[in-house]
Amino acid sequence: MFRLLLRTAFLASTTGMLVADLPPPADAEELQPMSAAEFDLLKKTLLYTEDDAKALRASREILAGQTDALLDTWYGFVGANPHLLHFFTRKGDGKPDDAYLAAVRERFKAWVLDTAAADFDAAWLAKQLELGRRHHRSGKNRTDKVDAVENINYRYLPALIVPLYTTIRPYLAAKGNSETEVDAMQEAWRKALVLTVILWSQPYVDPRDF
Amino acid sequence: MFRLLLRTAFLASTTGMLVADLPPPADAEELQPMSAAEFDLLKKTLLYTEDDAKALRASREILAGQTDALLDTWYGFVGANPHLLHFFTRKGDGKPDDAYLAAVRERFKAWVLDTAAADFDAAWLAKQLELGRRHHRSGKNRTDKVDAVENINYRYLPALIVPLYTTIRPYLAAKGNSETEVDAMQEAWRKALVLTVILWSQPYVDPRDF
Repeated sequence: MFRLLLRTAFLASTTGMLVADLPPPADAEELQPMSAAEFDLLKKTLLYTEDDAKALRASREILAGQTDALLDTWYGFVGANPHLLHFFTRKGDGKPDDAYLAAVRERFKAWVLDTAAADFDAAWLAKQLELGRRHHRSGKNRTDKVDAVENINYRYLPALIVPLYTTIRPYLAAKGNSETEVDAMQEAWRKALVLTVILWSQPYVDPRDF
Repeated sequence: MFRLLLRTAFLASTTGMLVADLPPPADAEELQPMSAAEFDLLKKTLLYTEDDAKALRASREILAGQTDALLDTWYGFVGANPHLLHFFTRKGDGKPDDAYLAAVRERFKAWVLDTAAADFDAAWLAKQLELGRRHHRSGKNRTDKVDAVENINYRYLPALIVPLYTTIRPYLAAKGNSETEVDAMQEAWRKALVLTVILWSQPYVDPRDF
């Protein structure tokens, strides 16, 4: 679906119909989302089970009213780390692009609930590839039509797994669930974050090697 | 140091002095280990502190007498998953290469204690790049002079973080430490595994993007 949208935007822009986002380089455009069979092997490898899906869905109800507070925490962390805030700065003056930060923040909130829905179907797999592109130079800045730093270094995608699963815990615990339930939800989030980062890494890795 | 050793082996082999490992492709050979300054930013990003180093070192004493049992668990997991055992199979007949498995197992045991030493200096950083190469087609099979599958798919490097930190816990708990101490050691292992996988991923990622 995303590929189709991108192609449509590309065709429209080359025929002068609208000032669309730039198309990604051909090699990134050629990437295919992971198949359901491949994703099943990945879930098996990282011990992701139906219990994790249930724990994620339980976390969705708990997090639903707290995504603004959660994003305050996460943006606070990014803002406190200049080497991370860097990826939201303009190439022109090196200053953070506030409109870009605000737009990403809204999508980040939606992503929390989308991940917690644990509905990892073909549309979700295709969306993760698109989200990966938006971190990589093949697609970054395009959605928000900004002139920010061109690429988020790969290394920070896996690294951010740790602060995300660490700082989400107080929000998971905020509605009075037992320690055991909070543990299960946090562990399901760890697995979901690892799965997500693998899929987002695809544009960074040679297709032969991925 | 590793680069020097590789170059020496290459020169020796091209002058017929010994039947050495094949040199890696030029582009992989050009990679530089992560600098200490870059690694500090990575540690900061994933909340790795001196407390984690202490917890890893505490785990080292606990794991020291258990690495054979731990490797039984890990190899049992790999052996039970044909899509993982695949990377240890010969290209010729598709069968697992037992000598290759045995050689990797010995190094895997040493790696456990090396990681737990938490001495993440320049030599360790250089070694992680070399270990990354041994998973990637630029260096796989060379150390053991085997004719196995040419590349471990990138996706399984992050994925294996989860079974490793999950299955190590009973070994961390085997010497009667408190739940709090075991939690701290397991969390330090999670962070060490994420750090390690990032460094091992370097040969898979375009240097501009890494």
